Amino acid sequence: MEEFQQRAQVLIEAIPYIRSFHGKTFVIKYGGNAMINPEIKKAVMLDIILLKYLGLNPVIVHGGGPEISEMLKRVGVKSTFYQGLRVTDADTVEIVNMVLAGKINKELVTMINQFGGKAVGLSGQDSQLLVARKKQLDNDQVDLGFVGEVVAIKPELLHFLIEKSYIPVVATIGVGADGEFYNINADTVAGELAAALKAEKLIILTDTEGIYADPQDQSSLLSMINIEQARTMIHSGQIEGGMVPKVEACIYALQHGVSRTHIIDGRRFHTLLLEVLTDQGIGTMVVE
Amino acid sequence: MEEFQQRAQVLIEAIPYIRSFHGKTFVIKYGGNAMINPEIKKAVMLDIILLKYLGLNPVIVHGGGPEISEMLKRVGVKSTFYQGLRVTDADTVEIVNMVLAGKINKELVTMINQFGGKAVGLSGQDSQLLVARKKQLDNDQVDLGFVGEVVAIKPELLHFLIEKSYIPVVATIGVGADGEFYNINADTVAGELAAALKAEKLIILTDTEGIYADPQDQSSLLSMINIEQARTMIHSGQIEGGMVPKVEACIYALQHGVSRTHIIDGRRFHTLLLEVLTDQGIGTMVVE
Amino acid sequence: MEEFQQRAQVLIEAIPYIRSFHGKTFVIKYGGNAMINPEIKKAVMLDIILLKYLGLNPVIVHGGGPEISEMLKRVGVKSTFYQGLRVTDADTVEIVNMVLAGKINKELVTMINQFGGKAVGLSGQDSQLLVARKKQLDNDQVDLGFVGEVVAIKPELLHFLIEKSYIPVVATIGVGADGEFYNINADTVAGELAAALKAEKLIILTDTEGIYADPQDQSSLLSMINIEQARTMIHSGQIEGGMVPKVEACIYALQHGVSRTHIIDGRRFHTLLLEVLTDQGIGTMVVE
Amino acid sequence: MEEFQQRAQVLIEAIPYIRSFHGKTFVIKYGGNAMINPEIKKAVMLDIILLKYLGLNPVIVHGGGPEISEMLKRVGVKSTFYQGLRVTDADTVEIVNMVLAGKINKELVTMINQFGGKAVGLSGQDSQLLVARKKQLDNDQVDLGFVGEVVAIKPELLHFLIEKSYIPVVATIGVGADGEFYNINADTVAGELAAALKAEKLIILTDTEGIYADPQDQSSLLSMINIEQARTMIHSGQIEGGMVPKVEACIYALQHGVSRTHIIDGRRFHTLLLEVLTDQGIGTMVVE
Amino acid sequence: MEEFQQRAQVLIEAIPYIRSFHGKTFVIKYGGNAMINPEIKKAVMLDIILLKYLGLNPVIVHGGGPEISEMLKRVGVKSTFYQGLRVTDADTVEIVNMVLAGKINKELVTMINQFGGKAVGLSGQDSQLLVARKKQLDNDQVDLGFVGEVVAIKPELLHFLIEKSYIPVVATIGVGADGEFYNINADTVAGELAAALKAEKLIILTDTEGIYADPQDQSSLLSMINIEQARTMIHSGQIEGGMVPKVEACIYALQHGVSRTHIIDGRRFHTLLLEVLTDQGIGTMVVE
Amino acid sequence: MEEFQQRAQVLIEAIPYIRSFHGKTFVIKYGGNAMINPEIKKAVMLDIILLKYLGLNPVIVHGGGPEISEMLKRVGVKSTFYQGLRVTDADTVEIVNMVLAGKINKELVTMINQFGGKAVGLSGQDSQLLVARKKQLDNDQVDLGFVGEVVAIKPELLHFLIEKSYIPVVATIGVGADGEFYNINADTVAGELAAALKAEKLIILTDTEGIYADPQDQSSLLSMINIEQARTMIHSGQIEGGMVPKVEACIYALQHGVSRTHIIDGRRFHTLLLEVLTDQGIGTMVVE
Repeated sequence: MEEFQQRAQVLIEAIPYIRSFHGKTFVIKYGGNAMINPEIKKAVMLDIILLKYLGLNPVIVHGGGPEISEMLKRVGVKSTFYQGLRVTDADTVEIVNMVLAGKINKELVTMINQFGGKAVGLSGQDSQLLVARKKQLDNDQVDLGFVGEVVAIKPELLHFLIEKSYIPVVATIGVGADGEFYNINADTVAGELAAALKAEKLIILTDTEGIYADPQDQSSLLSMINIEQARTMIHSGQIEGGMVPKVEACIYALQHGVSRTHIIDGRRFHTLLLEVLTDQGIGTMVVE
Repeated sequence: MEEFQQRAQVLIEAIPYIRSFHGKTFVIKYGGNAMINPEIKKAVMLDIILLKYLGLNPVIVHGGGPEISEMLKRVGVKSTFYQGLRVTDADTVEIVNMVLAGKINKELVTMINQFGGKAVGLSGQDSQLLVARKKQLDNDQVDLGFVGEVVAIKPELLHFLIEKSYIPVVATIGVGADGEFYNINADTVAGELAAALKAEKLIILTDTEGIYADPQDQSSLLSMINIEQARTMIHSGQIEGGMVPKVEACIYALQHGVSRTHIIDGRRFHTLLLEVLTDQGIGTMVVE
Repeated sequence: MEEFQQRAQVLIEAIPYIRSFHGKTFVIKYGGNAMINPEIKKAVMLDIILLKYLGLNPVIVHGGGPEISEMLKRVGVKSTFYQGLRVTDADTVEIVNMVLAGKINKELVTMINQFGGKAVGLSGQDSQLLVARKKQLDNDQVDLGFVGEVVAIKPELLHFLIEKSYIPVVATIGVGADGEFYNINADTVAGELAAALKAEKLIILTDTEGIYADPQDQSSLLSMINIEQARTMIHSGQIEGGMVPKVEACIYALQHGVSRTHIIDGRRFHTLLLEVLTDQGIGTMVVE
Repeated sequence: MEEFQQRAQVLIEAIPYIRSFHGKTFVIKYGGNAMINPEIKKAVMLDIILLKYLGLNPVIVHGGGPEISEMLKRVGVKSTFYQGLRVTDADTVEIVNMVLAGKINKELVTMINQFGGKAVGLSGQDSQLLVARKKQLDNDQVDLGFVGEVVAIKPELLHFLIEKSYIPVVATIGVGADGEFYNINADTVAGELAAALKAEKLIILTDTEGIYADPQDQSSLLSMINIEQARTMIHSGQIEGGMVPKVEACIYALQHGVSRTHIIDGRRFHTLLLEVLTDQGIGTMVVE
Repeated sequence: MEEFQQRAQVLIEAIPYIRSFHGKTFVIKYGGNAMINPEIKKAVMLDIILLKYLGLNPVIVHGGGPEISEMLKRVGVKSTFYQGLRVTDADTVEIVNMVLAGKINKELVTMINQFGGKAVGLSGQDSQLLVARKKQLDNDQVDLGFVGEVVAIKPELLHFLIEKSYIPVVATIGVGADGEFYNINADTVAGELAAALKAEKLIILTDTEGIYADPQDQSSLLSMINIEQARTMIHSGQIEGGMVPKVEACIYALQHGVSRTHIIDGRRFHTLLLEVLTDQGIGTMVVE
Repeated sequence: MEEFQQRAQVLIEAIPYIRSFHGKTFVIKYGGNAMINPEIKKAVMLDIILLKYLGLNPVIVHGGGPEISEMLKRVGVKSTFYQGLRVTDADTVEIVNMVLAGKINKELVTMINQFGGKAVGLSGQDSQLLVARKKQLDNDQVDLGFVGEVVAIKPELLHFLIEKSYIPVVATIGVGADGEFYNINADTVAGELAAALKAEKLIILTDTEGIYADPQDQSSLLSMINIEQARTMIHSGQIEGGMVPKVEACIYALQHGVSRTHIIDGRRFHTLLLEVLTDQGIGTMVVE
């Protein structure tokens, strides 16, 4: 019992956070390598269920990563890359869509429902949530195929599901005016969605601790950077690779009315709760 | 203009039907070979959009058929069959789920949205719409794997979506208490769903004209049969193959409060409108 | 069946119009000679019922014309006219009111209800829908009696009936602050009502094809004129007689937020549907 | 001020009645000779407005009487009578309808609106409020023409209007399945409507003090009679003429769930308030 | 009956007031010596109940006065005064709170409920209705203890209760950020509350007839003064003592959107009704 | 961080309880000696706030005990007792009411509001929540004065406050038909209220660990007893004193539809959370 009493303290101390976040929307990007460990995946889903019961409104945006590659391999589709972006032909986008919207999405939904939440899986086609178009590179000579960018968000369905106590889980396939499907970067969608929903926070769970001043030096984790610093670091290459769209999503969200954005470690247990329900700073907060 | 005036007549004559079906739910099973012709597929979606605008509440239940087989072939999964049922191992159900929930479902949703409706795609995992379990054969020695049967329907989400003017599109993957996915016959799901939603009608679009007294004789189409006759015909083998679950779905729906059930030809244009908005009997009506 | 399939096409092609007009209000002026043919009258009512079922919100404004004259004759009241306006003494306005609010209004309501709609008849007295005052002529020496003009519209009751799925049918009797009844031109009321309801369209059904460049030349029908042209034509006398208040009602509506105004032929079948549900221009559209 | 203080007492003493009748419906029949004196008519309307402001829901049912006869005379229609009922041919019913729905109804509505209430006038055609059929006499050889009886009441519209704070004013013209109009006795309609609305009270304002034990003896006013006594008195002829349908309306209402029914003097000021807001019995109460 | 008819007139004449005040909020300050006479207290409560039934929304703010002094005496707490303000130590504020929130408040609530209304008693602690802080005198050297001033009003709970037909009764204890209780002048609270609720009127019932030009001369009652005059009179001492916070409450309310403010005699019967429901000016109206 | 992760586990494990208790009402009796320690009092309030944020609906019923005695002493009122019940004269009930409704109630409300909840304090007078009458002893010769028993609960106000996210705090003063105040045992009120609200649980926080088989033997704590056992123990005197009304409240609640009743130790931290959010049995559960 004493142990319980000590532990209950964590809840009691969270009251001010619970109170101030009551009824607010939190867009949580979850995906890629942070999604590999099944124990952690379960813990993340439980954290999200708990946030919902505490009166917050989490919206999950997920990517796919490894499972897409694996399925492409199984059906024998080979990918070429241009500047780190997968050239996505019709065959590829069909597989990407099936893996994201048909497999990963439904697995996350199933986990949430199994552990006590009420989730609904959506992808950008549903109620035209994500209207997309072909992403244009500056260099016109490379055709990335069905790699898309967001033209418009139609969040009505999300608002309605949130109000009815569901946890929406969003696969980041967009749909063009022509009915074509486009694969869109999940970090980018998370930033756009946070903006469209006027979210309180955008939280990106990833497979590092956050942003490092020096990527080689794990002791150089930055607890906070502002937009200007972030841009300088992207320009200088200090922020690079998959971290770039994450930081850009944070910047976009901040510039469109989201109060706080965070890049935190999705490989450790309950970092999401720690971020939301305590004053312990973890990961990197990107601020205006 | 004169032509228009003549044509407008079709609308005017439909008023009594529109009136009496206002706000009622119609479960429409669409799938298999009836889904192959893209022109017809578009016409079916347009009919459904129109019914929605006329104040009726269509709910689409779809199967997969040919596309599943094709994808299984692409990934090199071979199927064995037992009494016409595909033995569905873990690999197979993963593919089935991806094709149904990730591909066909989202394609139907996209078509509806593109042509002027507002659709949301769901599969049985979403909000635990279809709670399933492993289907037990009488003969215990054959294990069909992840072939499922419905344990419970949780239609709350469908009610919400209908009320908010969405057209729900349902992929027939069920989810077990253990979180496993099960492939369930789409006709069966349509019957169960019609019952759970207390639908006005269950309409099964298929690739024949309806039920024939003599399957070999196309002039023997039956415009109406009752439950008893239907059972006799199943027993005698007059109704056989894929028609059996269709007829059984009708019987189940009728016995659980659905007013009318119809098996109609999904290969011809606007048979759905013809069935709902006129007094011209088409296909076979199964009655109590 | 083939015939039906062809005809169904008319509905399918109407989907974009149904969609974009969903929930919008349409003020439809119907009266005078366009109302004489009982077959056409029935067809107009059916068109209106259908528009309602398609999710549009028609509001009918009607005049009286021939039936008023006939009743005045029956009770032996003689009318004098000044500049085309009936000098309306107390006896006359009593008859006008009875014929409009008690006879024509209730007959239209009855037809709509009989053919499958849900109509409620109102006149300007109800919930003070049309607050009126004595119409002042520039020339003070002629007293038109109880000929009125609109002082204020109180549309609350209409909004409420529309929301509850009723089709309001409005007789154009206004009521003064003193409780006196005033006869108001029905075209004028239709224009004011369209403005007050922020209607999508004002459609005036009349007994010509529309506005002619040369009233003597039936081939000179104008498919569109703007406000400036309309004013010039009124000034020059090209638009004259009963067409003047119709055009002025259109101008008033356009200047108070109504998107489109149309003067169309009410003597032919289904011109209303043709105007609303197709892109075939009929009659004359008056635009800003 | 002292005078006011004394008078305010009447309000204070009414509180228990106001409280217990809050939100309850009162069907008030008003018509015939009780309607002739304009000062009294105004006072009755004011009483009704006040009851509405006090939270009660009055519904007015009115007849026509003298004004119908006068208009029939003006248009030269002669009436024959059979057993006190006017034989009503097509011409007659047209006039009756116009006078009731177009004149008297709108005049009452106008008075209420002018004195501070919010009234809407309806007749049986509106939203099919009063579905009627030809009244059958036992003696088949006499055809009363368009004299009707109630087949069904559709009170939905009344409920809506009451809820939105309107005072409904009902003219007693019924509409047949064939669209024909029928003149129905206003007392009868009041009784049916009270039953359909599950009214708290049916109050019939008339031009006598109530029911007399001996119609010749004004001192024999009965303050209360039960259904059995009422029937005996009708049978014996003690209750006769226009009082018969009044008493039968009370009986009908009582037998269909109305709590109290009253026949009171409509020729004196504020008898309505006196009946509803005090414990002073006036007129005759008919009880089960 | 004739007497009743005369009296009913008072109600009828009140209709325009009832109509224009429908759904409006009236903050009524009641307290001190005006509360002593139990017959008057009952009459005031009845007036308030009646206003509620007539569709107005009274909110009662009460003080304590004599009963506080009596209880302080019983428990042997002695008070010192500074400039007419009671120096309020911890012991004193505890007693003040108990008498106001526990005794007087619940007695008023009980009377209202007993006589036919539905009251709920609140004090400033409830839902943090009155957020307070220590009142600062210009002269820092005197510590008044727990005498408070309003920092913020949180009227959400009042809005809810009003909407649900309750009459809120408010005791004027405020609560500090530190959880301490503060005694706040009831007139001041009434003014602040009227402002926060955007009340139609603030009515202060007191134990004089209103404001006198010359306090010594009872014939010098002022029926109306404006803010500027009021300030001059406070400055000159013509308005003094307990009348000062009353007038200041009126000024505050007027400057924050309240339409009318009145100081009237609470020692006479039904002055509240007289003020609200007639055009007889009583007491003093303070205007902008 | 590791410590947090461990602690977060307590929340995660609570999800099934949070889920199944979502939207359910919990009546929590708190009072007497369990209320003395200010640290514990704060902890109890925090537990209750947390339960509210977790979606449960706590309703607090409190007694007074020591503070009442102290105030009676201060004002010099002496109490006599009969069979453990305080003989409560008019002076006494006045003090009891002030202490309960004016002091303790408002202090609990203030604490909850200060620590992040939204509380409203009520006593039985508010909206006639607790209708009471004089408690009759079997022995007629002793007059206990204003000691009351519950005649009726009017829970409408509580339902409404709960729905609007408030935590109601109830002081157990009842009000008689005559407007008199009665002191009612707080355990008894808690049981009646739990029944009237159809609560999920009644939890009585007290100053022992629960019910002992042998009150002298602290190791004899009973984790569960049924109604029959409880009655036997009361009869035999094993349950005695202040525990009797607690157990009787549990029995009453169980017999009127409350699912579970618990008597737990209110002197230790977070026992309330432990009881509600874990499967660790604490205290004594009384079951049917």
